[in-house]
Amino acid sequence: MTDVRRRVSLCCVATSPLLADLRAALGDDAVLTDPDLLRMHERDEADLCASATPLVVVRPRTTEEVSAVVRAAARHGAPLVPQGARTGLAGAANSVADAVVLSTVAMDRILEIDPVSRIAVVQPGVVNATLAGAVRREGLYYPPDPGSWESSTIGGNVSTNAGGMCCVKYGVTTEYVLGLEVVLASGEVLRTGRRTAKGVAGYDLTRLFVGSEGTLGVVTEVTVALRPAPEESLTLVAVFDSTAEAGAAVAQIAAKGLAPSLLELLDRTHLRAIEAYRPMGLRTDAQALLLAAVDTGSRAADDLARIAEVCEAAGADEVYAASDAVEAAALLQARRMAHPAMERFAAEAYPGGNGGLIIDDVAVPRGSLAALLDGVARVAAECGVPIGVVGHAGDGNMHPNIVVDRADPASLERGRRAFDEIMRLGLELGGTCTGEHGVGLLKRDWLAREIGPVGVRVHQAIKAALDPEGLFNPGKVL
Amino acid sequence: MTDVRRRVSLCCVATSPLLADLRAALGDDAVLTDPDLLRMHERDEADLCASATPLVVVRPRTTEEVSAVVRAAARHGAPLVPQGARTGLAGAANSVADAVVLSTVAMDRILEIDPVSRIAVVQPGVVNATLAGAVRREGLYYPPDPGSWESSTIGGNVSTNAGGMCCVKYGVTTEYVLGLEVVLASGEVLRTGRRTAKGVAGYDLTRLFVGSEGTLGVVTEVTVALRPAPEESLTLVAVFDSTAEAGAAVAQIAAKGLAPSLLELLDRTHLRAIEAYRPMGLRTDAQALLLAAVDTGSRAADDLARIAEVCEAAGADEVYAASDAVEAAALLQARRMAHPAMERFAAEAYPGGNGGLIIDDVAVPRGSLAALLDGVARVAAECGVPIGVVGHAGDGNMHPNIVVDRADPASLERGRRAFDEIMRLGLELGGTCTGEHGVGLLKRDWLAREIGPVGVRVHQAIKAALDPEGLFNPGKVL
Repeated sequence: MTDVRRRVSLCCVATSPLLADLRAALGDDAVLTDPDLLRMHERDEADLCASATPLVVVRPRTTEEVSAVVRAAARHGAPLVPQGARTGLAGAANSVADAVVLSTVAMDRILEIDPVSRIAVVQPGVVNATLAGAVRREGLYYPPDPGSWESSTIGGNVSTNAGGMCCVKYGVTTEYVLGLEVVLASGEVLRTGRRTAKGVAGYDLTRLFVGSEGTLGVVTEVTVALRPAPEESLTLVAVFDSTAEAGAAVAQIAAKGLAPSLLELLDRTHLRAIEAYRPMGLRTDAQALLLAAVDTGSRAADDLARIAEVCEAAGADEVYAASDAVEAAALLQARRMAHPAMERFAAEAYPGGNGGLIIDDVAVPRGSLAALLDGVARVAAECGVPIGVVGHAGDGNMHPNIVVDRADPASLERGRRAFDEIMRLGLELGGTCTGEHGVGLLKRDWLAREIGPVGVRVHQAIKAALDPEGLFNPGKVL
Repeated sequence: MTDVRRRVSLCCVATSPLLADLRAALGDDAVLTDPDLLRMHERDEADLCASATPLVVVRPRTTEEVSAVVRAAARHGAPLVPQGARTGLAGAANSVADAVVLSTVAMDRILEIDPVSRIAVVQPGVVNATLAGAVRREGLYYPPDPGSWESSTIGGNVSTNAGGMCCVKYGVTTEYVLGLEVVLASGEVLRTGRRTAKGVAGYDLTRLFVGSEGTLGVVTEVTVALRPAPEESLTLVAVFDSTAEAGAAVAQIAAKGLAPSLLELLDRTHLRAIEAYRPMGLRTDAQALLLAAVDTGSRAADDLARIAEVCEAAGADEVYAASDAVEAAALLQARRMAHPAMERFAAEAYPGGNGGLIIDDVAVPRGSLAALLDGVARVAAECGVPIGVVGHAGDGNMHPNIVVDRADPASLERGRRAFDEIMRLGLELGGTCTGEHGVGLLKRDWLAREIGPVGVRVHQAIKAALDPEGLFNPGKVL
């Protein structure tokens, strides 16, 4: 940061009544106008989404300060964009021009962990891994584990209704959100939900805000339900010569009433990308690999054997159990590396490191998983783009990752076409355009197709009821 | 039904343009104006709630017919009250004057059961027990099991977000609702949610409608998630000399990370009422009885032993396991008889069978259960009314049942005061005014206290956004 920049920044401050109001309410240190910082807060991790440098980034520390920011933005007619760790994959956290970006990172306190009532109360800026670790030390378990769990915040997880690998058995973020504190467009503070295991007092406003991607209010406190710590898990790998066989195995695992705590699929593209990124001894000649785990205690060995049988019957080329917890952890680590490994693979696929990924996210009913995998392969061939597939097979939630050359408009165009074809296929199979990444900017058109004109009008009516001036995160979702 | 009545009814039909429109849309057999039938559809099972005879009861068979009914009611400015089996306990299904009561009982088809994707699609009039039985025959499990499960409908369960005994392990209705078809106030048909295990496309409208008690639209189709069939369960009884000890045992069971599939509490009043209603050999000298079950397969015996240890450590007078499935079923049956047994007990407690029950429903964080039980005993003493307590102890969700003499205004007044004191106590303990029965007419004031003026305004804004003319179930919830 140079002196010149500092002077420019101070100069802006002096001339903007909005910035003056924000500084008066929050103090200078929580109101950031350094150009480097502003650029850093321009966008999340989604490709292909528009963004703009914000006017200012604020880091309130309390609900009262959030309320003051909202009132100031409303007074001056400035759009307000809430941000957590900006790890989102749909552009929902991208700034728009002249926006006040409200970062929740300074609201990072765990306020309470109650082992008897099995709840925790946290501020939105608490990192997922921090909460998961803190409750684990109390013998408890906060399941939602998005790929970004080591950096993403609970507030961001709530706003996107984040998923992860545990969901096949333990469900997504919304299953764990009991109550919220939210600052509304009026600056008023709304408390939703409860601290109790059950409750039906009034409309389920909690779940209306979960997954609303910052378009209805700013979440300032989250009460989550916790589970007892799960038992240790056993892990299995099944290697297939075709993705269709792997898909059929997943359907049979469900049909037989088995309940794995993890059921992930990696295709050959991802296996090769991971081996290139960090050699782990994965079978790169396989077309698909299923990674399954069970955490059913004394029954786990039996359940694992039944999953192995199903995989063999579905045509698996090789099935083996992890010999110990160290090997199981290494396999899980390999799965977790899929995203950075594919990023590297894509970058190196084109000259000058110009390769990029269009990360898709589609979910179909479990019974249609094999059809989805077949269809994605067909789309890749028809559109002439490499597509790797990885994801939460047990939930029917896959991430087709489309490799494009960012420097080549024709390649980008082919990638976008493949993206649209996959969305169309997902809906045709009775699925949804987003299983866990959200709508943001990336999938507004596909959301509209999925929910239809009546659904769009109901969304608009609710948005208008809660945010009549369109203050919060304009242009997202709808 | 006399000829005179029939003539009166036909006469009304001839003179009401609304009835003429309804008959034109649905045919004569689905438009009921017989005075006996109208009176039968006046109210649900809640006491102390206002009701009025409807103008007409309609029984549409299709979504299109529901839409026609909604449009006709809107056109003629008649309030529309949706009804399922009228087993509700908060007056949410009570008719208002001149209402069109829309009964969903003729929409009673199970449209689909898919064992691989683990979903079922049903019309709203399907009875809970019918669905539960149908999926059980496919080796699957639909958990929500409200006390009324043998007669209440899925549509009613969705509208009230019904609970039950399974919730302590398996959650309430909303956890199982993946998607809905809803007829809106405009008569348009909205589809919410999805058929997939995961999905984050847009606002969670599904869960906005679940628990909205018919105030936002008429549910015409429900897509539910199913689970694999649970393993057989083992059952245990723990007898306590004080309710506080039983409450402490519940807290310790939670604190030790045990996950019973059932954890119910009956107090002495209920034990005696059940023994009087149908002798089962229950210990009527006990102050409280805990009924616990575990369905953790090969681990179940160990888990049951640990629950037994916790109960003994908390001071249980006697702990014993059911010797077989027959005894376990009998114990469950005893618990299920609590409601009719207390109705009988209350009726006989006052001359002329004039005794009645005010059935309350309060939930507190599990750690506060003992305090709630103590407090209810104090309220009973202070208000001078008998109060029996029964409920879902593992969820902190109790039903204090207040015994009153309906013929004695002073007794009714004392009962109402006790009801209010229990609500106040529940909120003071960090709880909610309704754990599973809903708001309806019975708890509108307490809902307003619980959610505060900001919460009320948000509720009103959402109601106005979806039902601007106040067509659906006027006067309920808000």
